[in-house]
Amino acid sequence: MQLTPPHKRVLSKPANLLNLRVRYSETDQMGTFYNSRALEWFECGRTEWMRHRLGLSYAALEEQGVFLPLIEAHLQFRGGARYDDLLAVSTSADLAGRARLRFDVQINQQSTGDPVVSGYTIHAFTDATHKPIRPPEWLVALMAKTAESP
Amino acid sequence: MQLTPPHKRVLSKPANLLNLRVRYSETDQMGTFYNSRALEWFECGRTEWMRHRLGLSYAALEEQGVFLPLIEAHLQFRGGARYDDLLAVSTSADLAGRARLRFDVQINQQSTGDPVVSGYTIHAFTDATHKPIRPPEWLVALMAKTAESP
Amino acid sequence: MQLTPPHKRVLSKPANLLNLRVRYSETDQMGTFYNSRALEWFECGRTEWMRHRLGLSYAALEEQGVFLPLIEAHLQFRGGARYDDLLAVSTSADLAGRARLRFDVQINQQSTGDPVVSGYTIHAFTDATHKPIRPPEWLVALMAKTAESP
Amino acid sequence: MQLTPPHKRVLSKPANLLNLRVRYSETDQMGTFYNSRALEWFECGRTEWMRHRLGLSYAALEEQGVFLPLIEAHLQFRGGARYDDLLAVSTSADLAGRARLRFDVQINQQSTGDPVVSGYTIHAFTDATHKPIRPPEWLVALMAKTAESP
Repeated sequence: MQLTPPHKRVLSKPANLLNLRVRYSETDQMGTFYNSRALEWFECGRTEWMRHRLGLSYAALEEQGVFLPLIEAHLQFRGGARYDDLLAVSTSADLAGRARLRFDVQINQQSTGDPVVSGYTIHAFTDATHKPIRPPEWLVALMAKTAESP
Repeated sequence: MQLTPPHKRVLSKPANLLNLRVRYSETDQMGTFYNSRALEWFECGRTEWMRHRLGLSYAALEEQGVFLPLIEAHLQFRGGARYDDLLAVSTSADLAGRARLRFDVQINQQSTGDPVVSGYTIHAFTDATHKPIRPPEWLVALMAKTAESP
Repeated sequence: MQLTPPHKRVLSKPANLLNLRVRYSETDQMGTFYNSRALEWFECGRTEWMRHRLGLSYAALEEQGVFLPLIEAHLQFRGGARYDDLLAVSTSADLAGRARLRFDVQINQQSTGDPVVSGYTIHAFTDATHKPIRPPEWLVALMAKTAESP
Repeated sequence: MQLTPPHKRVLSKPANLLNLRVRYSETDQMGTFYNSRALEWFECGRTEWMRHRLGLSYAALEEQGVFLPLIEAHLQFRGGARYDDLLAVSTSADLAGRARLRFDVQINQQSTGDPVVSGYTIHAFTDATHKPIRPPEWLVALMAKTAESP
């Protein structure tokens, strides 16, 4: 009987790992940030999560032949953010199923804590030729270890 | 007895209203389009849907003080699209609840029909100061009429 | 005596090859298009110039191992363009020196002819590993032929 | 005799005011950053130059009715920068003529000092309705004072 499936939901602790300022180029004529920018900020959140929680840059992961293309995304826009506003990006990650990685991201105003946008992205594991692969064992182990750390 | 609720789900017919080519600027180092671009293509789909199905440009709608900020988005990435690929964007729209507009978008390769990305966006109705408003009656009527047309 | 230097300035005829609409994502809070978008529109101009004047897609050129990274750009912003404005992009190209390709681009309002932005980009010829190469003879010949055509 | 023209070239000291990382969204299929991103990084350089050298955010300047739309830009691409590379952005500014502001920007790899892109942007002074205005005296005085400071 399999009590501890090899890829059970391993939930990492959320962490406020990144501050970023809204760029003028990211605003639109409504005076707030254009919606698609949120997905770029989610990417910045993932990058810093991997660097700080796994001690591994995503750039290095790709050099080892492991790619994480996005296959699904969900976003909820909860409040405005204007040019030059300082935002706080909180990201957590877990393995979702056998070959999926899920990142949950929450972006708030740094000064007031007001929510700006939250959501998640789900990623496949592929090689450089876009073929699906299983998540490397060392990465699974690394994530499990990270989830347990205080 | 209320037989015709004022904001019942008014489903417009899907329509392939727009072709667009993947720009080089929209690719990333994985060799396919960067994920956030899909939300920009969804926007192009909405713009052309309104122009062709409602006979109304979104620019004109804003001039009349009606804004449609995005409050939720969901995207499923279903296949690659490379620089210069010609894409077909199909958009449909309906009123969702009392004060929400929902657009469903499907983007496929024009030449093969292969799916690229699909999803939806949900929009609030606000005035220029970002305050929620009820959808204008003329717009509700216009959408109902559009949904009935063959 | 060298009367016809192999890489003399071969000037292609300007041509209005492309219409594009300003996307909402391309506006900023000043209400007009954000400046960097002009370089993306220049790219669209180059792409269509190559397809229509050379009968060659830039995608195909890259597949043959010829890359045209941008090494210099100049832009003059001459007038506004708002969301949904229809723009006319005119592009011409010539070989500049032994191993440079130059594109001149002019973008105007389609309806009024009012200038929006003009400028040029200069490109090197490289292989896939970013190493400089000489422009392929067939491309030089093709451009010379194009320049002579009425 | 006019010894001190009111808007002589007031050259601010260059300063390395900003580090930024290349985002995945800023790469293209050539594997380096897409060219138009440089103009967005120039904007980040201007924003931080104003905050740190003038003690004034550009957001606050706009709230006072002073806008600085870009009217000319020149860029020289001098070296690659890949995803996650840490860049150093150095910006200086001066008044150019009666009603122009010029920013010179140099972007280098933080770790090696290798040049990535350099150039300048020239800005007009306008009010919120895009009408040209003269630069506010207090801003001219502020810039002169900044230029003299060690």
